[in-house]
Amino acid sequence: MQRFINNPDEVVEDTVKGFVKAHADIVRLGSNPRVIAARHAPVSGKVGVITGGGSGHEPAFIGYTGRNMLDAVAVGELFSSPTAKSFLDAAREANGGRGVVCLYGNYAGDNMNVKMATKLAEKEGITIATVVANDDVCSAGPDEREKRRGVAGEIFMWKCAGAKAGEGASLEEVQAIAQRAIDNCRSIGVGLGPCTLPAVGHPNFSIEPGTMEVGIGHHGEPGVRVEPLKSASEVARDMTKIVLGDHNLTAGTEVAVIVSGLGATPLNELYILHDTIESEITGRGLKISKTYIGNYFTSLEMVGATLTVMALDEELKRLLDVDVHCPAMP
Amino acid sequence: MQRFINNPDEVVEDTVKGFVKAHADIVRLGSNPRVIAARHAPVSGKVGVITGGGSGHEPAFIGYTGRNMLDAVAVGELFSSPTAKSFLDAAREANGGRGVVCLYGNYAGDNMNVKMATKLAEKEGITIATVVANDDVCSAGPDEREKRRGVAGEIFMWKCAGAKAGEGASLEEVQAIAQRAIDNCRSIGVGLGPCTLPAVGHPNFSIEPGTMEVGIGHHGEPGVRVEPLKSASEVARDMTKIVLGDHNLTAGTEVAVIVSGLGATPLNELYILHDTIESEITGRGLKISKTYIGNYFTSLEMVGATLTVMALDEELKRLLDVDVHCPAMP
Repeated sequence: MQRFINNPDEVVEDTVKGFVKAHADIVRLGSNPRVIAARHAPVSGKVGVITGGGSGHEPAFIGYTGRNMLDAVAVGELFSSPTAKSFLDAAREANGGRGVVCLYGNYAGDNMNVKMATKLAEKEGITIATVVANDDVCSAGPDEREKRRGVAGEIFMWKCAGAKAGEGASLEEVQAIAQRAIDNCRSIGVGLGPCTLPAVGHPNFSIEPGTMEVGIGHHGEPGVRVEPLKSASEVARDMTKIVLGDHNLTAGTEVAVIVSGLGATPLNELYILHDTIESEITGRGLKISKTYIGNYFTSLEMVGATLTVMALDEELKRLLDVDVHCPAMP
Repeated sequence: MQRFINNPDEVVEDTVKGFVKAHADIVRLGSNPRVIAARHAPVSGKVGVITGGGSGHEPAFIGYTGRNMLDAVAVGELFSSPTAKSFLDAAREANGGRGVVCLYGNYAGDNMNVKMATKLAEKEGITIATVVANDDVCSAGPDEREKRRGVAGEIFMWKCAGAKAGEGASLEEVQAIAQRAIDNCRSIGVGLGPCTLPAVGHPNFSIEPGTMEVGIGHHGEPGVRVEPLKSASEVARDMTKIVLGDHNLTAGTEVAVIVSGLGATPLNELYILHDTIESEITGRGLKISKTYIGNYFTSLEMVGATLTVMALDEELKRLLDVDVHCPAMP
């Protein structure tokens, strides 16, 4: 492993330490060292917005902590859910007295631990409302959307909910906009190379040279097919086709787009993909209002990229335009 | 090669196309398709600020185009200097009638082509003043600083000069602040894995597994030593020691820091490095005023990281704090 790490069992701890040092103007370590909180949190009278998830997806989840985004984040081990205690402590850090929304991805461990945290929070008078992200179109069929995993669409969900909460909206309103945001998102991943959990020391899945895995998940979950690696244009066309095929948007719809690297794919290749993605999207009569290209939601040093398309309405568009102040977003 | 590309000979063209589509609110293609210009450029009565360099370092150089940063960028082929014509056309796009500063890195091709562009521009009444970046401490000894290459310190040079130009400063003033900014920068790179020019198809240098190259250049130029790969803490300590050893700053000095990935190193590892870098810097009595962690200046899919430390005075600090609006910077 050609990696910059110390003790493989302390990757998360070391990451969090460096993160807090780098962004001390925006974030702070919670009283639980597996919680990152915004410096400004909690804000009295504001609905708290939290998330949590496994580490190794940086800048997700911690990098989205900040004003008009997340108030606190529960931090899990690499590719593992945070504990119920960490979700609870994140809610405590974010609680301004009007309840907390927990906006997280659809993974078994997260579901279980958020549910437990919600019960524990209730006992101390903190209401947690939840929204579960399921934007990964290849992780289950369109008739089983509740089984789909959450991926980079979560960023849009956090952004819209964070902005809405910042405007003073109620718990129900913030939950509703987060739900609408993620309902309007569809994502897909394509993997060209695996990643390695440092404590394991070898990849827990393989992608043969000359092939690619279409629909791969954020932890190497199998996609819908393995096929010979195609040109960037063809890959981008396939990604767009799958995402928009599931989305079923009418011409004239405005959309926001994220093309994210999975960790080891250089930025220039994301732009190469986007050249075709943009043509494919606009060629269907859709209008791209907002574009994010970069490493927004990664999987350690996986080689590959994800595409997220979010359909906008007037309110989602307005909320997406609200300025944020967090480490991961321009 | 597990990469998202089309024709290997058209990587730059495809990258630029996707880039302009993604950031059309900030940038535009110049009349020369190897020039990226800010949408707002030229600004009448403002000193133009330009750079240029080989592609493959994204987001450098093009991503730093925007308000209070670069007005135009000349785009070279992968790891090759832009042509004199492209530098000239970048100057034309940026010329608001008070001259143009060209702030670029110390590489033979760039030196030659900027010199030629400067002569051609003079003929049409555009004065180009130049500053050559040489912040890479391992590329030549301290008594031969004029031989050193320019690396990520260029970002700070552009930022300070762009902000100064935005305040209405004269050509001489903008040139002087750029010179002072880069004089105050020291950088080092450590490579853990090579990169491949797509048209070549195999790495043009090698880094054996289990080793690292200390002082590696942005195109794989040999460093000062190859040694067994150490822990992140040890690597970070070595990097800081080399950079600060060359810098010779007095305790109490404020500094700005960039820890940049080289393309295929995940963000969490940069934070792990920064945890120690921060301790080492502050342990010497220096104060870190500004920190940038991410892929700010890369080398295709090279595995590795660079550290840049810039000593601040009151004016440099103020200029670094000026808001910018460019694709690559938060």
